[in-house]
Amino acid sequence: MSTSATQTGSEREISHLLRIQELLEQDAWREAADLLRKLPPAEVAHVLEALPLTQRQILWDLLDTDQDGETLMELTEGVRNELVQNMDQQEIVAATENMDVDDLADFIQELPVDVTREILESLDEQDRHRLETVLSYPEDTAGGLMNTDTVTVRPEVTLDVVLRYLRQLGDRVPRNTDQLFVTNRQDRYLGALRLSDLVTHDPQQTVAEVMNLDVKPFKAYADASEVARRFEQYDLISAPVVDEEGRLVGRITVDDVVDLIREEGEHQFMGSAGLSEDEDMFAPVLESSKRRAVWLGINLLTAFLASWVIGQFQETLDKIVALAVLMPIVASMGGVGGTQTLTLAIRGIALGQLSGKNAIYLVMKELAVAAINGIVWAVVVGLIASYWFHSTDIALVIGAAMIINLIAAAVTGAVLPLVLEKLGIDPALAGGVLLTTVTDVVGFLSFLGLATLFLL
Amino acid sequence: MSTSATQTGSEREISHLLRIQELLEQDAWREAADLLRKLPPAEVAHVLEALPLTQRQILWDLLDTDQDGETLMELTEGVRNELVQNMDQQEIVAATENMDVDDLADFIQELPVDVTREILESLDEQDRHRLETVLSYPEDTAGGLMNTDTVTVRPEVTLDVVLRYLRQLGDRVPRNTDQLFVTNRQDRYLGALRLSDLVTHDPQQTVAEVMNLDVKPFKAYADASEVARRFEQYDLISAPVVDEEGRLVGRITVDDVVDLIREEGEHQFMGSAGLSEDEDMFAPVLESSKRRAVWLGINLLTAFLASWVIGQFQETLDKIVALAVLMPIVASMGGVGGTQTLTLAIRGIALGQLSGKNAIYLVMKELAVAAINGIVWAVVVGLIASYWFHSTDIALVIGAAMIINLIAAAVTGAVLPLVLEKLGIDPALAGGVLLTTVTDVVGFLSFLGLATLFLL
Repeated sequence: MSTSATQTGSEREISHLLRIQELLEQDAWREAADLLRKLPPAEVAHVLEALPLTQRQILWDLLDTDQDGETLMELTEGVRNELVQNMDQQEIVAATENMDVDDLADFIQELPVDVTREILESLDEQDRHRLETVLSYPEDTAGGLMNTDTVTVRPEVTLDVVLRYLRQLGDRVPRNTDQLFVTNRQDRYLGALRLSDLVTHDPQQTVAEVMNLDVKPFKAYADASEVARRFEQYDLISAPVVDEEGRLVGRITVDDVVDLIREEGEHQFMGSAGLSEDEDMFAPVLESSKRRAVWLGINLLTAFLASWVIGQFQETLDKIVALAVLMPIVASMGGVGGTQTLTLAIRGIALGQLSGKNAIYLVMKELAVAAINGIVWAVVVGLIASYWFHSTDIALVIGAAMIINLIAAAVTGAVLPLVLEKLGIDPALAGGVLLTTVTDVVGFLSFLGLATLFLL
Repeated sequence: MSTSATQTGSEREISHLLRIQELLEQDAWREAADLLRKLPPAEVAHVLEALPLTQRQILWDLLDTDQDGETLMELTEGVRNELVQNMDQQEIVAATENMDVDDLADFIQELPVDVTREILESLDEQDRHRLETVLSYPEDTAGGLMNTDTVTVRPEVTLDVVLRYLRQLGDRVPRNTDQLFVTNRQDRYLGALRLSDLVTHDPQQTVAEVMNLDVKPFKAYADASEVARRFEQYDLISAPVVDEEGRLVGRITVDDVVDLIREEGEHQFMGSAGLSEDEDMFAPVLESSKRRAVWLGINLLTAFLASWVIGQFQETLDKIVALAVLMPIVASMGGVGGTQTLTLAIRGIALGQLSGKNAIYLVMKELAVAAINGIVWAVVVGLIASYWFHSTDIALVIGAAMIINLIAAAVTGAVLPLVLEKLGIDPALAGGVLLTTVTDVVGFLSFLGLATLFLL
């Protein structure tokens, strides 16, 4: 007992992925599938995601367990869609059998209409009603995030009655139940009864005496990322969700919030490279190429814009070739400086801490930082340039251009994401491209422009 | 009741930040502090982080509540350190009074030695022992993440005894207790007793009959990000931590894991811009400038390397000025394409899904994607260039250079993070700079090199 107990999860997991990779290297497909079949859905998903496309597909077909549905929901969306594409209608319907209502609601929205209809028909009245409740709210709201598996009690009963009720429910008490919800006869939410309060109080007390009034419910239309922030700040395990009339419609549990927080982090990180957080590492080449091509194409537009700016100074470049050598430095430093400001601002917006109210302070601070760093690095670059090309004039021009571009970069980096947010454009996705467009254009324009004015 | 109950957390929070900003605009400092004093620590921290430096400091001095310690721990590290710098020793010691052991362990490591000594002396024997247990493990391990507030029971007692024990404990049952841990007389971990099992089973059954053997403990030295992944995959609320001998030393709760996952996401996102995830949006200008200067300096080195490459082709540029106009396009497209591959690889490594075993598949896939997109965009860029500069030769050269650079970018993007990881360098931090160094150098070298060979 004590050996298996002290083996940590991560060790088991890494050895599973490695072991399966080794088995596949030896073409031992059956053994790999047998090993995989013994793992819980989350580990199966983790292994499948780490396998290249063909290996993944073959293993998936070999698996065919009643855990398929759960495994599908543990996969990132890109990988899931890949696998579902190659499943027939019957397999898909079978996979949905053991899904939670919130998972099923997410899953069903990606399926063709006729498959959806068949799944709906396979549900009993109560489950269909639950599913329709969740489906009636957008995916990125509290309602879309919630599950309908609440256990409710009335305020007037004693804890003893609650304990007996729970014993009756037995295994049907849902996972991650840390508290029961107290509702009146109209289903209105009144408060929460923590299990830890239930077991630590006198069984003769009533629910009303012991229940916690501090647990505020989320409105079903509340923004999902606000819900996540709330869970994070208040260390919540579960929270009630109510409709417009204050009636309890479901509960959100921390495990779904954890997934959401991970996704939000990946969205910012992957988005800045023009990738979706659902991108499959081993997506099919043609599909990947198509998705990437869009991003490269957008970038090409901005690159040509920069080239066009340079093109306006061909005469200048023709006369002083040193300018061509030095010009990428100004553009590049602007891009780096601006990206730092942009990154701070995007995080501030995502955390709900940056708005029109305090943006001016951020702009001022970033301007000051840019001015200081502009001057410092203008001197350094100027010295190197004057030594390299034996020209004080070039040194002065590149120094001035650097200061101008870093300042333009700071203002753009701070203001742009707020403007994008106002326009309903995701700053994490569009911010970087637009910023470097500005810093490229301003960089080349200021450097070559100043050179044309003062050096010719 | 029902109105306050249906107001969601996020609405309250946004209105609080806005309300306080409005009060500060009217210089109503006392009112702002009074309002803030009524909020829980997490909301106070959220508001403070969103305020510019001077406003934040004044409000903090006005606050002075016994929640100071909790509020400090809710702040990001950058903001916390700012505030602590301006507190005197006595205030700091007072703030630590209500801190959890894991928070205190994090906090104490950032303080000067004499303050630390005084805090240690202020603790009673038991708390000091607990603190020393947590401090004995590195911060980024299960041991550093854990708290020592476990409630343990013996396997041979009945549930009824456990229930009576919990009633005795009453309020002393720690927050987020979803399960008790079962240990033998040598403190060895045996299993977990979920509260939901406790309340749904017959009180006459023994703990041994009801306890859950599937809850595997983490070893105290297990990597913290592995712990986070495990919580995420298995929807855990809490998990036991054991030492090398399998003795229970503490437990990890999901609220700390949620913070860790948020930090990991921010680390990747902020790291790619050379920022720390603890960066304060309103950090002092001089400190910010210093930290940013390092990143700009590193970038300047790589920019000069690219310039040096261009410098080798001054003669060529002197003869064909169109090359100077077009050359940023090749470098820029390589940077964008490579960043996409790099981003995928960094995420794969962070999730434990990319290693030497499957890297070759990623390299092959990314090569194929780069080849396809290289050809597509080479044709587009070639057509535009030939139209712009009336030269098929330039079109052929830029097309070829583009394909070469996108392929180099793909290989670098896939292999570089694995190499950095092996060397113990954080790919999220160093990957981007090194990648663009490669794509700049290869971009300018291939374009200007091919031009020198074929166009002169």
